[in-house]
Amino acid sequence: MEKNKLELYNSKEEYLKDLEKRGKLPEGFKTSVVSLEFFPAERPVEKPLPMKLSLLMLDKPTSVFGAVFTRNKCPGAPVIIGKERLLSDKVRGVIINNKISNVCTETGVKDSNMLLEHLAKETGCLPQEFFPSSTGIIGWQLPVKDMVQNIPRLVSALAPGTGVNLAEGIMTTDTFPKLRSAEVGDGCIVAVAKGAGMIEPNMATMLSFIMTDISMERDIIRDILKRVVEKTYNSISVDGDQSTSDTVIIMSSCEKKKVSEKEFEDALYKVCLDLSVDIVRNSEGCGHVVKASVTGASDFETARNIGKAIVNSPLVSTAIFGNDPNVGRLLSSIGDYAGNNNIELNKDKISISLGGDIVFEKGAFRLDQEKELRLVHYLKSRVLDSDHKTFPEHNYTVNIDVNLGMSSGNGNATVFGSDLSYGYVRENADYRS
Amino acid sequence: MEKNKLELYNSKEEYLKDLEKRGKLPEGFKTSVVSLEFFPAERPVEKPLPMKLSLLMLDKPTSVFGAVFTRNKCPGAPVIIGKERLLSDKVRGVIINNKISNVCTETGVKDSNMLLEHLAKETGCLPQEFFPSSTGIIGWQLPVKDMVQNIPRLVSALAPGTGVNLAEGIMTTDTFPKLRSAEVGDGCIVAVAKGAGMIEPNMATMLSFIMTDISMERDIIRDILKRVVEKTYNSISVDGDQSTSDTVIIMSSCEKKKVSEKEFEDALYKVCLDLSVDIVRNSEGCGHVVKASVTGASDFETARNIGKAIVNSPLVSTAIFGNDPNVGRLLSSIGDYAGNNNIELNKDKISISLGGDIVFEKGAFRLDQEKELRLVHYLKSRVLDSDHKTFPEHNYTVNIDVNLGMSSGNGNATVFGSDLSYGYVRENADYRS
Repeated sequence: MEKNKLELYNSKEEYLKDLEKRGKLPEGFKTSVVSLEFFPAERPVEKPLPMKLSLLMLDKPTSVFGAVFTRNKCPGAPVIIGKERLLSDKVRGVIINNKISNVCTETGVKDSNMLLEHLAKETGCLPQEFFPSSTGIIGWQLPVKDMVQNIPRLVSALAPGTGVNLAEGIMTTDTFPKLRSAEVGDGCIVAVAKGAGMIEPNMATMLSFIMTDISMERDIIRDILKRVVEKTYNSISVDGDQSTSDTVIIMSSCEKKKVSEKEFEDALYKVCLDLSVDIVRNSEGCGHVVKASVTGASDFETARNIGKAIVNSPLVSTAIFGNDPNVGRLLSSIGDYAGNNNIELNKDKISISLGGDIVFEKGAFRLDQEKELRLVHYLKSRVLDSDHKTFPEHNYTVNIDVNLGMSSGNGNATVFGSDLSYGYVRENADYRS
Repeated sequence: MEKNKLELYNSKEEYLKDLEKRGKLPEGFKTSVVSLEFFPAERPVEKPLPMKLSLLMLDKPTSVFGAVFTRNKCPGAPVIIGKERLLSDKVRGVIINNKISNVCTETGVKDSNMLLEHLAKETGCLPQEFFPSSTGIIGWQLPVKDMVQNIPRLVSALAPGTGVNLAEGIMTTDTFPKLRSAEVGDGCIVAVAKGAGMIEPNMATMLSFIMTDISMERDIIRDILKRVVEKTYNSISVDGDQSTSDTVIIMSSCEKKKVSEKEFEDALYKVCLDLSVDIVRNSEGCGHVVKASVTGASDFETARNIGKAIVNSPLVSTAIFGNDPNVGRLLSSIGDYAGNNNIELNKDKISISLGGDIVFEKGAFRLDQEKELRLVHYLKSRVLDSDHKTFPEHNYTVNIDVNLGMSSGNGNATVFGSDLSYGYVRENADYRS
């Protein structure tokens, strides 16, 4: 069995202190966050609802930026506008709101554009130099009036320092802010993310904003971003849903000199992978973080899809939630995916282990009473204690290793997911109240 | 809003009485069920575990039979053997056990065959005249010795009468037996089913045994069965998993004279659809039964897959569980499926309604405060009251109607699913204990 418990923090204060330390913004960036309240048009409420408006801004426009968006065919207005922005010569920043995701309302695109116009006026920039970004309830209208009123306050609050306020400002059901950074060359990469619930293939309800001061060509940074997103944000999965609003944006101030592509990609991968796992660990009701490593597949896609089939299976995840090593469901979820996608499996070559303990090999399950007790103990030792986490308690994962033993098998992938718990059901049953 | 509450039964007794009435076996069939206890090799337990062994048998061998099995690529031994049986000239019956599904153990096929050999000896038939069928935990070995010891008792208990004992014998986490019947021509169709949890595309952990006395050609009955299964058992979905053991078997004693194909297919469709909805209504922790009707798709497959994407979305189903009309998630789940499968959507032509109330039309959500209250009321009025149902309380469904408005849109499908509730998580978290 594995023994690598990593106690991280003893309190939220300790965690936030660490975030402050690692969160120093790269040169050339400022951020600000303001709170506001509004009454929605679509639901009768007794008290106004809270919203946070965040701004991430470069001191100077940059041509070195890129973005990856959800593949959902009913994307929000900010995604529609964001895709157009990729054609802009230069951008200056991103304005982000939580609470309402601005998807498919009659005035959606108009609403976002109005926000940008007021922001441009206030900052002396052009509207097309900004990305809009929204997360929250689908189908409701943005309270544009209330938001516009707060733009002067938002702009005047802009300050250098750390990105922790931004990481906090973009949260929805997240219970702690998520920020990761890496030094690279003379500069750094600093990124924040939000996402909890509905985290899946294409980064569902996942927002991530990545800042760097390293100089880089625009085409190269875009290619690197795409590759990294596939192996990080697109390799986590909490509930199999992909949202209408998922967005990853990278921007460089180019204040520091270039590094090699590989050096930059490695650093970006590390930052994004850590943020991805942070998101899973903070997903709604998450008890165990499940890490499914699939090797010996025909290709990366197959490996990743089978990893996702495992972590997305409600039967697998509810068993893990209950510390029940019901390993039959692991094989069943693999067979289910293969059957639905016409993939041939050679059961005799498949091996599956849980926590390093072989449970399936050479065509048959390898189970006995001692192993059962060991696996129960393993699962119990890897759970997050508190139901409502305000900081990441440890770095534990429940490790599921699958070797598919396919003849052409060079495809490997690692997928992270969450157990499906009471908390998940509770939080999603009335998310909007 | 719809108003078609159908109170069905006031007590389990009333329900069982009705089952007895509708459950009279077709001519030429007998059934029996015995209980036994065993200690599993794979898990330390203080008390032996209970198992039920059921037998369904024809008075005479028949050549008119067919079966449809799971598409899971890691099927159980009974499915492997069952597929071979389809090549047999004649069969006599099915022996079924619950508790262990006999999947991928070293001795799986051997174990099932040993059972059949003893059954053949006891009945004076051939082993290849029987289908084996198992449902329950994946990965554990069948307690063949204990089962074989009980075969004489099982065979001597064979009796005509109703199929209610069989419907009860095959239950696992089901909380009430499921049996449906229809008169057709001079004879009838009587079918039982088990399934609760892991109900999906290809009838996951779903067993159904269909008996008829209507004469029919073997090829024709097999074609009819395939078509009917697609629109019934393969159009329900509780958790997106398809099991290693799903099986539907039909057998005719041919004691009554032929009817037209259409007449038989219509009756079989009705029986299987009602059983399918019974299964959903009795699925683990089910509160609301969700009925997603999709029209205007390019074809049946697309319609059904989009229906499944809706009812399988944990975000949609947890919202329904909480009586929260978070209708944005309906559109999101449609867009998610379309995005992952390269299906073009024309949002302006899509309409979505919940309980007959339009919530999305002409490219935008149509929501207001009054409608919100109406939808909350609708969802609240359609829930099953008791957490642990021992009989179906009513026939309510939560109706989601989607018109995709595709230009070539003749594809329609109706999919049934369950809300995802605390009960679902609780039951699946420690199913094996």
